[in-house]
Amino acid sequence: MAAQNSNFVTASLKGASQVFFMENPLTGILFFVAMAYASYASGVWATTIGAAVGVVVATLTARLLDCDEKSVASGLYGFNGILVGAALPTFIAVSPQLWVYVVVGAAASTVVTAAFGATLTGRWGIPGSTGPFVLTGWLMVAGAYSFGGLHVTGDAPRLATDYVQGLAPVPAPLELVQIFFRNIGQVYLLGNTISGVLVLAGIFIASIPAGIATAAGSIIATVVAIGMGADPAAVSQGLYGFSPVLTALAVGVVFLQPSVKVALYALLATVTTVFVQGALDVIVAPAGVPSFTAPYVLTMYLFVAPKKLMAPHPHKPVSDHMMAGDDGAAPASAAKPA
Amino acid sequence: MAAQNSNFVTASLKGASQVFFMENPLTGILFFVAMAYASYASGVWATTIGAAVGVVVATLTARLLDCDEKSVASGLYGFNGILVGAALPTFIAVSPQLWVYVVVGAAASTVVTAAFGATLTGRWGIPGSTGPFVLTGWLMVAGAYSFGGLHVTGDAPRLATDYVQGLAPVPAPLELVQIFFRNIGQVYLLGNTISGVLVLAGIFIASIPAGIATAAGSIIATVVAIGMGADPAAVSQGLYGFSPVLTALAVGVVFLQPSVKVALYALLATVTTVFVQGALDVIVAPAGVPSFTAPYVLTMYLFVAPKKLMAPHPHKPVSDHMMAGDDGAAPASAAKPA
Amino acid sequence: MAAQNSNFVTASLKGASQVFFMENPLTGILFFVAMAYASYASGVWATTIGAAVGVVVATLTARLLDCDEKSVASGLYGFNGILVGAALPTFIAVSPQLWVYVVVGAAASTVVTAAFGATLTGRWGIPGSTGPFVLTGWLMVAGAYSFGGLHVTGDAPRLATDYVQGLAPVPAPLELVQIFFRNIGQVYLLGNTISGVLVLAGIFIASIPAGIATAAGSIIATVVAIGMGADPAAVSQGLYGFSPVLTALAVGVVFLQPSVKVALYALLATVTTVFVQGALDVIVAPAGVPSFTAPYVLTMYLFVAPKKLMAPHPHKPVSDHMMAGDDGAAPASAAKPA
Repeated sequence: MAAQNSNFVTASLKGASQVFFMENPLTGILFFVAMAYASYASGVWATTIGAAVGVVVATLTARLLDCDEKSVASGLYGFNGILVGAALPTFIAVSPQLWVYVVVGAAASTVVTAAFGATLTGRWGIPGSTGPFVLTGWLMVAGAYSFGGLHVTGDAPRLATDYVQGLAPVPAPLELVQIFFRNIGQVYLLGNTISGVLVLAGIFIASIPAGIATAAGSIIATVVAIGMGADPAAVSQGLYGFSPVLTALAVGVVFLQPSVKVALYALLATVTTVFVQGALDVIVAPAGVPSFTAPYVLTMYLFVAPKKLMAPHPHKPVSDHMMAGDDGAAPASAAKPA
Repeated sequence: MAAQNSNFVTASLKGASQVFFMENPLTGILFFVAMAYASYASGVWATTIGAAVGVVVATLTARLLDCDEKSVASGLYGFNGILVGAALPTFIAVSPQLWVYVVVGAAASTVVTAAFGATLTGRWGIPGSTGPFVLTGWLMVAGAYSFGGLHVTGDAPRLATDYVQGLAPVPAPLELVQIFFRNIGQVYLLGNTISGVLVLAGIFIASIPAGIATAAGSIIATVVAIGMGADPAAVSQGLYGFSPVLTALAVGVVFLQPSVKVALYALLATVTTVFVQGALDVIVAPAGVPSFTAPYVLTMYLFVAPKKLMAPHPHKPVSDHMMAGDDGAAPASAAKPA
Repeated sequence: MAAQNSNFVTASLKGASQVFFMENPLTGILFFVAMAYASYASGVWATTIGAAVGVVVATLTARLLDCDEKSVASGLYGFNGILVGAALPTFIAVSPQLWVYVVVGAAASTVVTAAFGATLTGRWGIPGSTGPFVLTGWLMVAGAYSFGGLHVTGDAPRLATDYVQGLAPVPAPLELVQIFFRNIGQVYLLGNTISGVLVLAGIFIASIPAGIATAAGSIIATVVAIGMGADPAAVSQGLYGFSPVLTALAVGVVFLQPSVKVALYALLATVTTVFVQGALDVIVAPAGVPSFTAPYVLTMYLFVAPKKLMAPHPHKPVSDHMMAGDDGAAPASAAKPA
């Protein structure tokens, strides 16, 4: 029983570390310290409590649903739950209904994780990653507008026409250092510089190449965002950096074997993520929700999907169509044999 | 010839009953009576006529396209058409162009049903259910704003910021009974209490467990919607109940073998559907369309997708990627052998 | 080296022709002449230059990524890039950042094309077609609102309620002829009648049936759009015709074996595309982006997806579900054996 509880705590801490693709309980502890520090600095503890509740409920739900044991133990069913638990109190004011929301949202995130695993991963070999968190988070925050027991905090949604136009000066060196760390902390929705330092330390503890890719992603994102003239306030808070950081790490180190060519591929993916960040901020604004890690998720899916020896469909008939004649035509699958 | 016509009528009535997953012409007749009663009460007959046209056109199109005969005969190509036919006159004023729209929309719904069958079902084992209706209905209602021959009735779209805030009192007992039945009638877009009684009777005729799940779904939805502080006017019209009712039925009885564990799983799914209802109302509002049964469809897809022994992709290289080296890596499919 | 360069130019010109499903360098030259003529007439050369940059960057990226050689040589990795390159300067004012955007967007379009090939095509047999252009174009244009170095030109986004209501008179015969050709030129975002003539000539050079389908699609779209009362200004500019033209060609000639039955199927698809055009104009407006060829892409996917002998999932248990008992149930795949 004690062993089982200890296993459960380890699985939950590994879940925290899996947000950055690591499987290391120490890293998970450091991430919790980073969250607690930000809560201490801001006086808002609901986010850290929500994260703890989220990872516990998500991991527990995975056990109750008999999900793949090894995956549960390595934290793969926990990292979406921890993000749901941290995100909901960030965007919704504390109320009894919020805690119902956190518990149901974290439990649902496990089902969504299993659904992504069975579809995206099972058939297309695309990792679900934080996609289940983005989907669950969007639905929960958007839904909050419909319920009187929930109150969405933060700015009113902006339309495309409201967005910033014109270039801004380059930030001072000290601010650039702060942005570098906030880009990393914001993966956990933490705009706190010290928290970013703690998160980066946690990543380096688990893997040095992962730490380097994270740092590189943060620098690339900052250069591109400033060069394109992104809103200086958003850049300063690290909001243009957290998705590119994840892309650099996922495409450059985690899901592809590192090499020079993969590094260039990851560079294109990281730059693209900054543009997709700008796009999704505009696209999801009418629904009144933040874009979360969707820029990373969408870009990563697109860059991880391409398979070897697979060709686009030629502009020829699809052979097994409902309306195809019996004499057949070109094969529907355009995969070229090796 | 007479036999063929009789078969066709039976297939169409079964199509009406398949909206609630039943395959029973008597149930279909009761559903038509429920629609006709609502038309009689409101004086608006276009919805009932549209439903009849929709199921006939959709079933006929399926025959012309040589769709799977058994599926056509059991009404599986008719239930999306009947909903398109009922929905368009509910949200668009009567005009010659509306009837063109109903006919083309119902015919297209059959193609969309076949497309969902070939993709969602064929590869992922997820039933399309009323997804084709939702997609077709959204496109047709949104499109109506672009055409001078079509006039969308009802309220102007609301933005996220317009939504209700604050809690409301619990409705009186009599109103709770009305809500219970309206939740069921609204699956057919009927806010009429008597129509809800007739629909529930039709379900019980076909299957007692299905009737019980429907009733349970309606009660759960009402409790959750009121507890979370949903807009009392929407709750009263049954608008927070029809999707959860379908989820309870689909997840609890139809697509999974009933058991205690499945009942708990269906409870989580049903509660989640209420939240997704709140979310989608906000998300689709800028497009000026109703959410239809999308909250049910999305939730059901997510809860039915997870497969046995399937694990999420581990945070390791994807082996068959375009950029993968020749020495391979971890297998892309993370399915664990039994 | 000279041969390789010549091959590269041929691949790029074939890429231009693949926008209309052709694989013919002469057709590609004519399409470039059509773009250059429109640039000459309007004095705006950025679109033609962008198109040239787009197809070169996209094709080059495909080579660097070791994409399927035969597909690269036939232009299948170039046609989305040329459209991205033509579209971005059409909707975003010229600036240094715009050219960064065009280059990154065209390179990304190749990755997106490979991703669509590996998912849509590889598993479902659905051709990606201009889907990658639509996705990349939406993200880039929406993203432009977030960057001070990019300025989106054109009208402010309109909400659903702003749309036209009421019928308009039928255009004069001369205008109908102009609309006929603009419907075709607008596939390349060209509202110029002469450019439309050149594009149609290029199609007929490559394939007479393709030319006939294109012309038929243009006529059908005009009749339906006017009959439904679409905005006369949009109809006049050819904006209601370019997607239906592609649908008529794709469904009627390219992806299905032509026959009487397929012609009727393509007619339903073409009419549906006009309605979807009206819908998507409304749906994407809040994001401030044009609908591009999305009405064609969505409709074509739905009409090309249905497979022979495939049935929708019956309303019975899904056998391999996480929550399914060991005693099994109905098979998840509903494909009927031949």
